[in-house]
Amino acid sequence: MPDQLGAPIAAPLFERAAIIGVGLIGSSLARVIRRKGLAREIALHDSSDTVRGRLRELAIADHVADSAAGAVENADLVILCAPVGAMGEIAREIGPRLKAGAIVSDVGSVKSSILSAVAPHLPASVHFIPAHPVAGTEQSGPDAGFASLFLNRWTILTPPEGADPKAVALLTAFWKNTGAHVEAMAPGHHDLVLAITSHVPHLIAYNIVGTAADLEEVTQSEVIKFSAGGFRDFTRIAASDPIMWRDIFLNNKDAVLEMLGRFSEDLTALQRMIRREDGEGLEKLFTRTRAIRRSIIDQGQETAAPDFGRRPKDD
Amino acid sequence: MPDQLGAPIAAPLFERAAIIGVGLIGSSLARVIRRKGLAREIALHDSSDTVRGRLRELAIADHVADSAAGAVENADLVILCAPVGAMGEIAREIGPRLKAGAIVSDVGSVKSSILSAVAPHLPASVHFIPAHPVAGTEQSGPDAGFASLFLNRWTILTPPEGADPKAVALLTAFWKNTGAHVEAMAPGHHDLVLAITSHVPHLIAYNIVGTAADLEEVTQSEVIKFSAGGFRDFTRIAASDPIMWRDIFLNNKDAVLEMLGRFSEDLTALQRMIRREDGEGLEKLFTRTRAIRRSIIDQGQETAAPDFGRRPKDD
Repeated sequence: MPDQLGAPIAAPLFERAAIIGVGLIGSSLARVIRRKGLAREIALHDSSDTVRGRLRELAIADHVADSAAGAVENADLVILCAPVGAMGEIAREIGPRLKAGAIVSDVGSVKSSILSAVAPHLPASVHFIPAHPVAGTEQSGPDAGFASLFLNRWTILTPPEGADPKAVALLTAFWKNTGAHVEAMAPGHHDLVLAITSHVPHLIAYNIVGTAADLEEVTQSEVIKFSAGGFRDFTRIAASDPIMWRDIFLNNKDAVLEMLGRFSEDLTALQRMIRREDGEGLEKLFTRTRAIRRSIIDQGQETAAPDFGRRPKDD
Repeated sequence: MPDQLGAPIAAPLFERAAIIGVGLIGSSLARVIRRKGLAREIALHDSSDTVRGRLRELAIADHVADSAAGAVENADLVILCAPVGAMGEIAREIGPRLKAGAIVSDVGSVKSSILSAVAPHLPASVHFIPAHPVAGTEQSGPDAGFASLFLNRWTILTPPEGADPKAVALLTAFWKNTGAHVEAMAPGHHDLVLAITSHVPHLIAYNIVGTAADLEEVTQSEVIKFSAGGFRDFTRIAASDPIMWRDIFLNNKDAVLEMLGRFSEDLTALQRMIRREDGEGLEKLFTRTRAIRRSIIDQGQETAAPDFGRRPKDD
């Protein structure tokens, strides 16, 4: 969708952007930065030799550095795109090498724990403004990325108290130029919102796929054959990157447990409705949930094509 | 995909097919019967005046009858496509009007309860062979149907003990000509398999959408905006027809409660892993679930396009 992303901007927002950790998100960022001309130069680093080798082949950036510290040299924008659990260690390594005045940000799916893991390692001369683009697919790695990943999706910024308004404005402009909408909120609120819109959905998807795999009465082959009845929708998100998701649950424990508690309570109530054959109660819930999907489609966060366009209508 | 459905067959399998209840599944059946020439004539009936009016406009069949009894007159294939809870009453109405030797089938998502609700009303001279095409989209109504809905999906037949092998063979041939794969199993086993591959997934999707809608700390607008983080995948199946799903849960109560019990047990274990920060256990589960998706894609029950092709790669 090159036309939807629009033409490159008139002048780069940054001289040198460094991306540390180059999977789906990091490589999509590199691609859109280049496509839109958001930085004059792009440096990448990934801790995996294999990924660095692949990045050199893909040629989506100007430099592929062998160390995180090397990548951030002279960068005025540094974005950490590693799994949440690795952020603190990276910050410790790059801290002393950061350019004064640089903006340091990230794309982690939890925000409170990142703030406390990363901030202590950064010099006072840089602007740390955490961010979270709520975008992605179930695929991982630098080949999975694409420039329009952030288009019409929301990026949440969680600037710490007293953050430099100019730095926040610049990072906001950066994300808007990737095609994203931008909203700011407190880190704790972010973690609660994402617990219900992303973390608990992933958890229950992982869980039901696990339950199905462990059954003795129903074979795995039957689960696979008859998955079009609904199950397969869960397997997509249960195919997401395991390390990334392990770190999310470990780092957003309180909000996830809180939202999971609500989910389980509601599920118990629903279970009782079935046991008591309360058809009216079931129908009422099932009718109410339709409206939310309608809003999600109306607001461009989803396609209305049946089955997500898996099965085009032929007549 | 007219080419994938193939050319019409050499001679119709049935003289007159009657479809009672014409929503997504019934109207898809009418379309594929006509497209493939599986019956010489097609008669439809729906209990809703509005739907009957629409069916006359759509002109996907030869007759739109004002009563179920009228539609089945002289039919040698009768397929009940109404919600599960309505099947018994329809059987009672059409029973006396069925042609001797006719095959009576259905498309209900539960099989044990349909057998007991329908069979007593049918004369001994007809062949009752329940069936369940595991196919569908989240959309409802006669406009939502399309001829290739069953293509590469599985249809499960649950012939009662002592069913006429010729009738079973004919119904099998019918479904194969819609493009479906066909498998036979006992009704009780069907209900267990579908409880885990379809009914419980729908239940937990309805449940989490309900949980999210009821939160006070997170606004509905936030849930909608940030739904791309995973939540929106659940809203698709939680947008399915409420009456149909109410009936499924009421009629497959035991199997659903059994499978829901397993799901909840596993979820409690997962909750404990998070509380105890058992990263290794989480990673192990999250890695295992990837393999199942791979198999579902390999066996043609799912597309591998990221996000189901919602977001095409642009570079």
